[in-house]
Amino acid sequence: MAKSDIGVIGLAVMGKNLALNIESRGFSVSVYNRSRTRTDELVEEAVGKRIQPTYSIEEFMESLTSPRKILLMVQAGAPTDETIEQLLPYLVEGDVLIDGGNSFFEDTRRRNHALEAKGIRYIGTGVSGGEEGALRGPAIMPGGQRDAYALVEPILTAISAKVGNDPCCTYIGPDGAGHYVKMVHNGIEYGDMQLICEAYHLLKDVLSLTAEELHEVFDEWNQGELDSYLIEITADIFSKYDPDTGKPMVDVILDTAGQKGTGKWTSQSALDLGVPLSMITESVFARFLSAMKEERVHASKILRGPEQPSVALDKEAFIEDVRQALYASKICSYAQGFAQMRQASEEYGWNLELGNIAMIFRGGCIIRAQFLQNIKDAYDRDANLPNLLLDPYFRSVIEQYQMAWRRVVATAVTYGVPVPAFASALAYYDSYRSATLPANLLQAQRDYFGAHTFKRVDRDGVFHFQWMQAEATAGRD
Amino acid sequence: MAKSDIGVIGLAVMGKNLALNIESRGFSVSVYNRSRTRTDELVEEAVGKRIQPTYSIEEFMESLTSPRKILLMVQAGAPTDETIEQLLPYLVEGDVLIDGGNSFFEDTRRRNHALEAKGIRYIGTGVSGGEEGALRGPAIMPGGQRDAYALVEPILTAISAKVGNDPCCTYIGPDGAGHYVKMVHNGIEYGDMQLICEAYHLLKDVLSLTAEELHEVFDEWNQGELDSYLIEITADIFSKYDPDTGKPMVDVILDTAGQKGTGKWTSQSALDLGVPLSMITESVFARFLSAMKEERVHASKILRGPEQPSVALDKEAFIEDVRQALYASKICSYAQGFAQMRQASEEYGWNLELGNIAMIFRGGCIIRAQFLQNIKDAYDRDANLPNLLLDPYFRSVIEQYQMAWRRVVATAVTYGVPVPAFASALAYYDSYRSATLPANLLQAQRDYFGAHTFKRVDRDGVFHFQWMQAEATAGRD
Repeated sequence: MAKSDIGVIGLAVMGKNLALNIESRGFSVSVYNRSRTRTDELVEEAVGKRIQPTYSIEEFMESLTSPRKILLMVQAGAPTDETIEQLLPYLVEGDVLIDGGNSFFEDTRRRNHALEAKGIRYIGTGVSGGEEGALRGPAIMPGGQRDAYALVEPILTAISAKVGNDPCCTYIGPDGAGHYVKMVHNGIEYGDMQLICEAYHLLKDVLSLTAEELHEVFDEWNQGELDSYLIEITADIFSKYDPDTGKPMVDVILDTAGQKGTGKWTSQSALDLGVPLSMITESVFARFLSAMKEERVHASKILRGPEQPSVALDKEAFIEDVRQALYASKICSYAQGFAQMRQASEEYGWNLELGNIAMIFRGGCIIRAQFLQNIKDAYDRDANLPNLLLDPYFRSVIEQYQMAWRRVVATAVTYGVPVPAFASALAYYDSYRSATLPANLLQAQRDYFGAHTFKRVDRDGVFHFQWMQAEATAGRD
Repeated sequence: MAKSDIGVIGLAVMGKNLALNIESRGFSVSVYNRSRTRTDELVEEAVGKRIQPTYSIEEFMESLTSPRKILLMVQAGAPTDETIEQLLPYLVEGDVLIDGGNSFFEDTRRRNHALEAKGIRYIGTGVSGGEEGALRGPAIMPGGQRDAYALVEPILTAISAKVGNDPCCTYIGPDGAGHYVKMVHNGIEYGDMQLICEAYHLLKDVLSLTAEELHEVFDEWNQGELDSYLIEITADIFSKYDPDTGKPMVDVILDTAGQKGTGKWTSQSALDLGVPLSMITESVFARFLSAMKEERVHASKILRGPEQPSVALDKEAFIEDVRQALYASKICSYAQGFAQMRQASEEYGWNLELGNIAMIFRGGCIIRAQFLQNIKDAYDRDANLPNLLLDPYFRSVIEQYQMAWRRVVATAVTYGVPVPAFASALAYYDSYRSATLPANLLQAQRDYFGAHTFKRVDRDGVFHFQWMQAEATAGRD
């Protein structure tokens, strides 16, 4: 039997769809699954295709051309480690393992280094786009040894999404870089979704828009600078009705958000790196709050909101204000996420090319949007841009939109509609552009109670002040 | 030589001051330090006191009454593990090790379980109040075996701060409970300090108050329901002038906040537990932003703020609004921190008594305040209160103050003064009291792109909708 170009281990929906995708681009694929049922199912489905079933690790490994390229699509965490252990006796120097699961980047770093010590090359790659993307073309974010990537590049770029002729796949960086970028992608996705939810909340509660009107608003927004997959499906969602009740689908769905933990990881990593990822983290916390449904229902009967303002808002003007607030907040969210990748790149020595990362986000993945081209342009203008807010394009958008953004947050707090992400993004903008923040007082407090010392504005050095001994009137304002 | 009641290992300032504190309450203390200089210094300082210097682990261990009580005051992390390793050959069943450092609670859990398996009892205790507190009376939060606590209770309660006759020390719970509570205490401290900074920022930038006026405002606030150590020292700070320049001290201090990581841990743990600790986390991020001084100075030259409103604010009314916003936000911050302890208690099986924890925070520690009595009262009314916001006292404060709070956030966003903590606390309040949040749309999106399924408002079960196949007009609003 002819040897296969690549092998796929783990045939749950993502692994199966990736195998089919790879085969459809002209490569032959060996497949293996722990239980044979899934293997048999795939083989039945793929009659006539160059997909070779195998029923033991040994058979699987023998069916691959050398150096072997093996795509692991098993559960993240311990199952991934166990699978690697099982493969180890059969792996030889030069083979390439590719972890396409949602692994935590620190695990990927560890595995990459441990296997490299044995001469085995290891790629950890983000794969974004869900089941549909896996089959038709996902965004792919591979990290690991560059020479290992060169070996699998033809396959990965062939199966990835395309924007024009550009594949949504590029080498990200060493060891855990690919999984890290995928993690931040997911954090940004949390942010985008929360911003859309807050816009929806305002339009529904303050303007009382119907689902039909909401459909029209989001459909129109999708024609402009907010053009993106998430705005598009949001418009579509508002056009769908429940066959059973005739109500808009969105109105029969319970408001308790689920999650799979990658948003949380992004926030935890930002906390480790000292990066202010406030807006995205508010989005994670908003999901937690949504999940506390019973407690909220109980609280809603006890805790009062504000008296509602008596002056009616201009409907069209407020819709446009919300659109501008959404776009300005979205810019801050991406500014935070990209600043985090920049910091991680320094911390872990990854040399991330942020412009190229924006480029591969343009297709296949959930956050795909026109907007990402603007990010690419920003890094083309200045590869070392410390923060996207400083780029002329984004700066001018926010300058134009900030009054609307401020009106929306002020309106929301007046009406009692929670907008944690809009407000957090605005606080981020106002903090970032502040030459002076009130942390001088905070440093005074820390020095007062803990002798933690402080720096001065007028000279170098580290100082401590005898707060309790000092005269209260040693000077004058 | 008579054997000592307790031994202290590690004679940096915290260990030294605790040893002196213990001796001053009538206990005899053996001391040991890795390098003998610190031991000698302490002995010189403590002539005539019942402090016995020792110069080897063996000598130290032999100098203690049985069962031995040993207070470790060494650096958290690896140094603590190394010290425990050194002690192990000399420890016998029934001895009690007490870690009084700022250890991560997971480390304390691990050490407690590992030593318990060897018959050694282990207490991890939070000690709050800085150097001064260590010497004169800190708040003490001991976690570990209850019988181990009983052995050291006379010493710990004797050295702790007192409020009236109540010692600020109580048994917290098993293994890592004490260090966990100390960690959340520090997170709350971050929140309190950030709220004060935002109030200061508004009063300084919007009302242009001088340091002298700020001193008066905070001094007055400290007479009312905000009465607390941090408000008190803030008032005091504004009364201090730099001897060199004659300027208010606060104006010569650089606005870059430092930190030691416990605030970060609190946020990371909240993310793990699914607790919305948004306001405290914004406070952590605010410190990160403050530390980016150069970047902010650069950005301040490029990014414009809003046009300033032309209508002047009523000074006295705005000061009172800010006071009310500060108090309402503070209530939300404590609601978040105590909800986190409640969740951790369930997760780790600690049976935390939240009312007692509030009681020991009343003295010795940085967040000490009258206000904590209100929290104790709330848990006396309902030991299982899910959230402090639901307590009649806190509820009525927020009902009275919410319009002021909303005006302050609206004013801040209009003027361009960042108030991440005020705004985040308000979004938390408005989310928590919302029977319905917009996460129904978010669940629709997740089901649309990832077939993640959703629950319905009108029946039990888990559902998936064929979004892309469905007719767009199957119903009507």
